[in-house]
Amino acid sequence: MSRVQTLYELQMIGTAVFAVTGVLAVNRRGLDALGGTVLGTVTALGGGTIRDAIIRAPVFWLVDTNYLLVAVVASLVAFFTSRLFKTTYTLLLYLDALGAAMFAIQATDKVLALQFAPAIAVAMGVLTSIGGGLLRDVLAGRQTLLMSREIYATPILLGCLLYVALRNSPLASAPDLIISIAFIFCIRAAAIHWHIQMPGWLTNRHDQP
Amino acid sequence: MSRVQTLYELQMIGTAVFAVTGVLAVNRRGLDALGGTVLGTVTALGGGTIRDAIIRAPVFWLVDTNYLLVAVVASLVAFFTSRLFKTTYTLLLYLDALGAAMFAIQATDKVLALQFAPAIAVAMGVLTSIGGGLLRDVLAGRQTLLMSREIYATPILLGCLLYVALRNSPLASAPDLIISIAFIFCIRAAAIHWHIQMPGWLTNRHDQP
Amino acid sequence: MSRVQTLYELQMIGTAVFAVTGVLAVNRRGLDALGGTVLGTVTALGGGTIRDAIIRAPVFWLVDTNYLLVAVVASLVAFFTSRLFKTTYTLLLYLDALGAAMFAIQATDKVLALQFAPAIAVAMGVLTSIGGGLLRDVLAGRQTLLMSREIYATPILLGCLLYVALRNSPLASAPDLIISIAFIFCIRAAAIHWHIQMPGWLTNRHDQP
Repeated sequence: MSRVQTLYELQMIGTAVFAVTGVLAVNRRGLDALGGTVLGTVTALGGGTIRDAIIRAPVFWLVDTNYLLVAVVASLVAFFTSRLFKTTYTLLLYLDALGAAMFAIQATDKVLALQFAPAIAVAMGVLTSIGGGLLRDVLAGRQTLLMSREIYATPILLGCLLYVALRNSPLASAPDLIISIAFIFCIRAAAIHWHIQMPGWLTNRHDQP
Repeated sequence: MSRVQTLYELQMIGTAVFAVTGVLAVNRRGLDALGGTVLGTVTALGGGTIRDAIIRAPVFWLVDTNYLLVAVVASLVAFFTSRLFKTTYTLLLYLDALGAAMFAIQATDKVLALQFAPAIAVAMGVLTSIGGGLLRDVLAGRQTLLMSREIYATPILLGCLLYVALRNSPLASAPDLIISIAFIFCIRAAAIHWHIQMPGWLTNRHDQP
Repeated sequence: MSRVQTLYELQMIGTAVFAVTGVLAVNRRGLDALGGTVLGTVTALGGGTIRDAIIRAPVFWLVDTNYLLVAVVASLVAFFTSRLFKTTYTLLLYLDALGAAMFAIQATDKVLALQFAPAIAVAMGVLTSIGGGLLRDVLAGRQTLLMSREIYATPILLGCLLYVALRNSPLASAPDLIISIAFIFCIRAAAIHWHIQMPGWLTNRHDQP
């Protein structure tokens, strides 16, 4: 039905990566193994769950329990091996960027395939990609990424818009998925590598006394 | 189906007002244009989205994409023109009060029209009206209005109860919508104008050591 | 349909207990009668509401309005009589443990009866039992139990796993419900009575500098 089902293994890897980064993000605050696993699983599955509830589709991890199992196992492993991840945290940031890009474009594609309007598909792409992290941060009492100048959600939004534009153009066909995912990943990776924040004119940092 | 569909233009204005007040409410804390737009849009659409998920109706802004577009555009405009709103913030409070009143009564009417019990319609009226603001505050790390003595949710609850009573009485017909909306708006406007807070006996401020 | 419908009266008592403990948990922070009632009601009904939205079942308190009425009345009573509860707070902790156990096993049973996989039934049992408290804490700006070392969610998880195992074994029939509820309650009651926290090796308290 959706053209991204060939990306199944990549989605499982993305789910695991989201769960691992979810656990590591809250790991400095005291929590136990179950709390960590819940937060990692929420990070991995939360965005898609909210999307499916809104578009009234069957929730994806009820249809395919592998998502739940991968998220739980990855969270548990991350919780008990978090020391090992300290040296590879930067690698995880890049993997998280790749996971976010895949989730966003896959969700945009899924919602378009269900005949929703492009504006809704873009909104759902962004929501799917950042919703799990927002839920985790709210449950963990952390500041959400919405309140920061980190360049995280903006490339996702632009990539979803790009994907919708490519699909509607007569030019592209199969590679539009890969182009859009690569587009998001490259911007995000550049922001990670060069520590780029949102430019001041796009924030309100300096415009309040 | 529902008698309030003639209020369509008013609903769009209410959506825009909610988005604008949503952006302005969090504007003092550093956030970028996308974060502000997400928070404004969540304020405008969040309550109705939760309501529709609970009553299992199609989510209103998927059925009519204008709600999403109005919320996004109003949020963006509010973000980039927030300096201009400083002198008109009090006007916005009144518009917000009118929007909250309309959303509450429209939701109560919608849920009653779907044959749910009056108690559920009242609960959904309150949820629709305050849910978006609650979501915004949680995502922005602000204290929710549930924890304050501001007179905001109480007139909404009373207005929804009034509307249910008027619809069940043999007397009223068309004007019950307007009466209920005006009832909520007048109490809220009085609270804004005279800075009235909840009376002490209805709070626990003074009853804890 | 589900074997736990004979536990109807117990469920109403559990709903009332959750509402009362929900109100008392946030009672030290200034809030008014409506805020308290909303938070108590959210504590009592929130977990099951999220569960039903995810499994796409009719939300239980729309089907049977008694849940809503019991939660609202119990919350109101708790708000206005909170002084009286001070001497009985420990009793409430035990009642809350019993309510959490019942909600978890009843939800696991309901989801299994709808032919979902055992892993999903266990996840939904835990979510139903702790979801309302999580929502309340987020809305009230409190630290959620996920971030604490309190032994609350872990016995619930183990009890749901036990229930799934008992139902799949050829041995048990009717008593598996009671055994699983008692299992959760006894562990939680022991944790309350002896002030037991999660052992260090299951937390990350000591493994971060």
